[in-house]
Amino acid sequence: MTTQVLVLGGGGFIGRNLCRALQREGHDIVVYGRCASPSETDDRTRVTWIAGDFSDHDRVAAVAADCSLIYHLIGSTSPVQSNADPIGDLNATVVDTLTFLQRLRLPSEKRLVFVSSGGTVYGVPRSLPVGEDHPTDPISAYGINKLTVEKYLHLNRHLHGLDHRVLRLANPFGEHQVSRRQQGVVAAFMRAALRGEPLVIWGDGNTVRDYIHIDDVVDALLRAGRVEGIGERVINVGSGVGRSVREIADAVEAIAGHPLPREFRPARASDVPAVVLDITRAAAVLGWRPRVPWEEALRRSWDWHRHHQAGD
Amino acid sequence: MTTQVLVLGGGGFIGRNLCRALQREGHDIVVYGRCASPSETDDRTRVTWIAGDFSDHDRVAAVAADCSLIYHLIGSTSPVQSNADPIGDLNATVVDTLTFLQRLRLPSEKRLVFVSSGGTVYGVPRSLPVGEDHPTDPISAYGINKLTVEKYLHLNRHLHGLDHRVLRLANPFGEHQVSRRQQGVVAAFMRAALRGEPLVIWGDGNTVRDYIHIDDVVDALLRAGRVEGIGERVINVGSGVGRSVREIADAVEAIAGHPLPREFRPARASDVPAVVLDITRAAAVLGWRPRVPWEEALRRSWDWHRHHQAGD
Repeated sequence: MTTQVLVLGGGGFIGRNLCRALQREGHDIVVYGRCASPSETDDRTRVTWIAGDFSDHDRVAAVAADCSLIYHLIGSTSPVQSNADPIGDLNATVVDTLTFLQRLRLPSEKRLVFVSSGGTVYGVPRSLPVGEDHPTDPISAYGINKLTVEKYLHLNRHLHGLDHRVLRLANPFGEHQVSRRQQGVVAAFMRAALRGEPLVIWGDGNTVRDYIHIDDVVDALLRAGRVEGIGERVINVGSGVGRSVREIADAVEAIAGHPLPREFRPARASDVPAVVLDITRAAAVLGWRPRVPWEEALRRSWDWHRHHQAGD
Repeated sequence: MTTQVLVLGGGGFIGRNLCRALQREGHDIVVYGRCASPSETDDRTRVTWIAGDFSDHDRVAAVAADCSLIYHLIGSTSPVQSNADPIGDLNATVVDTLTFLQRLRLPSEKRLVFVSSGGTVYGVPRSLPVGEDHPTDPISAYGINKLTVEKYLHLNRHLHGLDHRVLRLANPFGEHQVSRRQQGVVAAFMRAALRGEPLVIWGDGNTVRDYIHIDDVVDALLRAGRVEGIGERVINVGSGVGRSVREIADAVEAIAGHPLPREFRPARASDVPAVVLDITRAAAVLGWRPRVPWEEALRRSWDWHRHHQAGD
């Protein structure tokens, strides 16, 4: 049986990949978001694209009314930007989500999958890898606001029976990622390499992140939307492997086949020194594990960027 | 050496008791809040009372400019009310606090003590007593918003060096507590007993809370404002002892000296079944422990209510 699925914020990197997978599974999809318009290569079968703002509450509520599964991928800004305007970020994430939840006319049969941030909600980890019960002390407003939305989803479950699931994503990369807003180091490096620009490294390059291919992320999202009788509702999704920014630079250099100049800039206050996710729970709850090997993931990303060099 | 101290929300139950103690210690105090006006019995020496709203950001910032120690006691609503209007509660706590922090012109020498809620931030405890590292899954918007303010204080420490301390209070009771907004069961029961009204019990009366006398709370607040070189900045303050609502009713009945009718009402969704705080950290960090014995605390509360029977 197929389901009408709403993808909020579906015009972005994760959303576009998710929508393709949902199409393959035969779902009818509504994509809502600021950048919700099909690209030339997008299959338009059974997809309704609606360009709109999450703060247009009446419109979002009307769109959501007929959808039984909702993916909430809307994240307003980057960690860096969020610290410059925490109230703006709060309004664009927490307040709009709260309003959306109030309009859902709960209790309902709706299921909601929220994409949270495994790289920011924990803050500076006390130990690695970081499990879901690790203390949460973000060092960016972005992380705080993601966490606050998680809390409100839990509250709505308690009060109204909302069937929610939270995926705390590591750093996704892969096809269709355009590097904007100083995020997405793999995409940023590949784009720079293809344009003959230096690789911009914030800090000394020893910052460690957990990189995961978008196909694995999408697989986890599909499973999170499908699984019944879920117990733990907050789930890390990452590779479980830590790699430094220098390692990423070296890997992109190897795949480019020639030396790439590096430009070091001052470390950013919103960057934690290292984060690697413990993905034990995802295996137990979703039956999920990452499947795309690192080298293949890099190669596929590189090929995509080579064919979309001009795109941004 | 004395310090100019600002008590935000100082016109309430905790604030009035705190201000008296600060006066005794010789501090100059500014009390800012909606109910910030002296009562007939208040000592007006070295106290400036300013009646105002926390959302009057320019005024609050001007008042704070000359104060090196700030107590932030402002809590907008009760757990019950917060769930009816979570966005209103969010604006009145998180957004106003965020604006206040931005106006503090950090980095500064200011120290800020925030009164958070040990009864709500943890949600339904997985085990008792609840330590500060217990997961935080509130079942009221009130608890979420207190928690979010905690996170923003941590962020401001990380970004701007704010010297903050967070006290997660259990259920305080004692002199000067007027029972409003369905909170403060000791005060509510004593007031009802003195007025010949039934004791209103939400649920079956088996709800367990951690009750702590206001003098012990004030002692912890003074220590939190004073201690240097603090390590852990989030600290539970409670008795460490759990008592059911029935036990409170029985105790008030005993002190009243005659049977008190009880009126049972439906349980409230925002009430966790039981919460008792682990107060080990407060002993280690603040050198604090509760000192007022339960019977004495009840007796003093009763005497105060008897002499202020008409007050509300």
